[in-house]
Amino acid sequence: MTRKYLFKADDLKAYVSRFLMNFDVQEKDAEVMADVLVTADLRGVDSHGVIRLHTYYGTRLRKGLIDPLSPTTVIRETPVSLALDGGNGLGPVVAHRAMEQCIGKAEHSGIAITTVCNSNHFGIAGYYAMMALRHNMIGISLTNSRPLVAPTYGRTAMLGTNPIAVAVPTGTEHPYVLDMATSIVPIGRVKVYSKSGKRIPAGWGMNNDGNVTEDPNAVIDGGVLFPLGGTDIMRGYKGYGLAVLVDILSGVLSGAAVSTGVGDPTNPNRANVGHFFMAINPDLLRPLADFTKGMDELLQQLKMAPKIAGHERIYIHGEKEFEQAERCTAQGVPVLAPVVDSLKEIGAEIGVPFELIPLGTNTENREEH
Amino acid sequence: MTRKYLFKADDLKAYVSRFLMNFDVQEKDAEVMADVLVTADLRGVDSHGVIRLHTYYGTRLRKGLIDPLSPTTVIRETPVSLALDGGNGLGPVVAHRAMEQCIGKAEHSGIAITTVCNSNHFGIAGYYAMMALRHNMIGISLTNSRPLVAPTYGRTAMLGTNPIAVAVPTGTEHPYVLDMATSIVPIGRVKVYSKSGKRIPAGWGMNNDGNVTEDPNAVIDGGVLFPLGGTDIMRGYKGYGLAVLVDILSGVLSGAAVSTGVGDPTNPNRANVGHFFMAINPDLLRPLADFTKGMDELLQQLKMAPKIAGHERIYIHGEKEFEQAERCTAQGVPVLAPVVDSLKEIGAEIGVPFELIPLGTNTENREEH
Repeated sequence: MTRKYLFKADDLKAYVSRFLMNFDVQEKDAEVMADVLVTADLRGVDSHGVIRLHTYYGTRLRKGLIDPLSPTTVIRETPVSLALDGGNGLGPVVAHRAMEQCIGKAEHSGIAITTVCNSNHFGIAGYYAMMALRHNMIGISLTNSRPLVAPTYGRTAMLGTNPIAVAVPTGTEHPYVLDMATSIVPIGRVKVYSKSGKRIPAGWGMNNDGNVTEDPNAVIDGGVLFPLGGTDIMRGYKGYGLAVLVDILSGVLSGAAVSTGVGDPTNPNRANVGHFFMAINPDLLRPLADFTKGMDELLQQLKMAPKIAGHERIYIHGEKEFEQAERCTAQGVPVLAPVVDSLKEIGAEIGVPFELIPLGTNTENREEH
Repeated sequence: MTRKYLFKADDLKAYVSRFLMNFDVQEKDAEVMADVLVTADLRGVDSHGVIRLHTYYGTRLRKGLIDPLSPTTVIRETPVSLALDGGNGLGPVVAHRAMEQCIGKAEHSGIAITTVCNSNHFGIAGYYAMMALRHNMIGISLTNSRPLVAPTYGRTAMLGTNPIAVAVPTGTEHPYVLDMATSIVPIGRVKVYSKSGKRIPAGWGMNNDGNVTEDPNAVIDGGVLFPLGGTDIMRGYKGYGLAVLVDILSGVLSGAAVSTGVGDPTNPNRANVGHFFMAINPDLLRPLADFTKGMDELLQQLKMAPKIAGHERIYIHGEKEFEQAERCTAQGVPVLAPVVDSLKEIGAEIGVPFELIPLGTNTENREEH
């Protein structure tokens, strides 16, 4: 359990904005970035929150490896589709713009797809899928990412943890928000086990000899992650298939890099990440009120089902995160002490001092996805 | 290893058509049914082949539980969408019609969705996704199904094995065809273990006390299947999330039954199965030739990756099935001896004698999905 400082969400967002504007990011874009990163922390997905402000974005901006203006250009366009070049801009800025335009098209046509090539790591996939909820639409958000996952029978990293995010509006229930890596766990989870000296469950990853290992360091140092499902007997080829599907829709369809070609945000090569977004108006197929009522009924039915021993709740996807966000909005957004230290150090260095006063501290440690 | 008889595909299709026309199915519809069922056998997915002709369709037609005319009606329609009522018709006939119209709309608009409510078991999901390939489109096919899978922390069947099928056109490579149940395995696979007296791997299913069991009969008799991923430590909530997503898009969006409301094809209740189809023209986003070339490159790169010990190939999704279909087209479609016996018996009973001469026999036993 590492100590966390609790900050007001608006304070954190304001700092992130100032930090980015110092690197010539436009105010509006900086505010989008701030909202995406702080929303990740708010929802408990702290692996994709302000912890990444410097590692994924600040360092690249300083070295000129990301264009701070995120100059997106249109490659192809129809009433139901838009292919964008992300101009090697900030992933969250480019993705937010792409999803906004996707929703705008779906407001007219009912369905729309936007692809993006030449982008960078875009943070939590769920953020963009959830943008559709405000418009009573189903939102889909996919991205490829640097190789970390082995195909079934392979022993090297050929695919990213390529997440799938889908958000579906409801009536009285929290929206359904699936936001999942297509690997069993992200590499960050393995690192958490490594730091705490614990062994990982057999099946999460392989060492560099291609053998299943329970040693987290053997996965981190030259090993690979398994796709969802794990080994072939547990049908890992399905997770592998989903990871390929995300690479096809985000990478091949957009014209971005794919497989081992996708850049690592911490390396100086161009990332050329690809994204895929879709918005669907359910009213195309069924009156919206019937649809949202049907959603409530399905989710309630699942939650009321009999539980296994030792468990009192069945969760709907996104539900834990909505509850976490409600707590954090009231009590403050938790940021790990080492992350705060690093922001103070870098902030001082670049002349954007991190001087936020925390509301308090806690030692809660939620599971990340 | 059970003995299989090998039949000419066209002979088998002709028999299936005659069988169905005997129950007042129109010739054109009977031919579609025959193609869907025999294609399953051809591709090695024999759990969804002619073995189901009587159990899923014949028995229901005889009892008047399926409308042989499959009278689909339009509920809602736009240039990019179509909501159909399947009229309690034959699942494959209704689904084929729905996907044809989906593709027709996508030929004009670039993207289209068709939903279907009030349908029945539609056979292999991949069939309809693959229909898009002939039009150089990406095809998606989803369906809900009778409850067999527990949500994470639940101990009863609340979701079907709800498959996801996606087909993507390529250049020189076999198309990418993902066709996966969102459970680890279908119940049919557990039954295969039961019949051969083998124990199942821990994690495929639970007994009716909500405990993981290696006894296949404990899963079959009142137990449940795990979603892809399995228990929570292996991230079974992702498979659970995908199963819910399929239920949302096939069931809630179409207005069909969902969760425990979906009927069992072997029970006399109305099934009210829901389907979801989508067609996407990749040329909307990238010139088709670039897209298919990109697909070939991605798939080749995956296949050439280093293998783990004991394996010489990395497979692309659908590849084994394409190779199987090539073999079966040359050598004959394998049908299990007991299935042949049952067709002979029922055929005699209904006056459509099964008199096909097999091309030969074999004892091959492929893994089903």
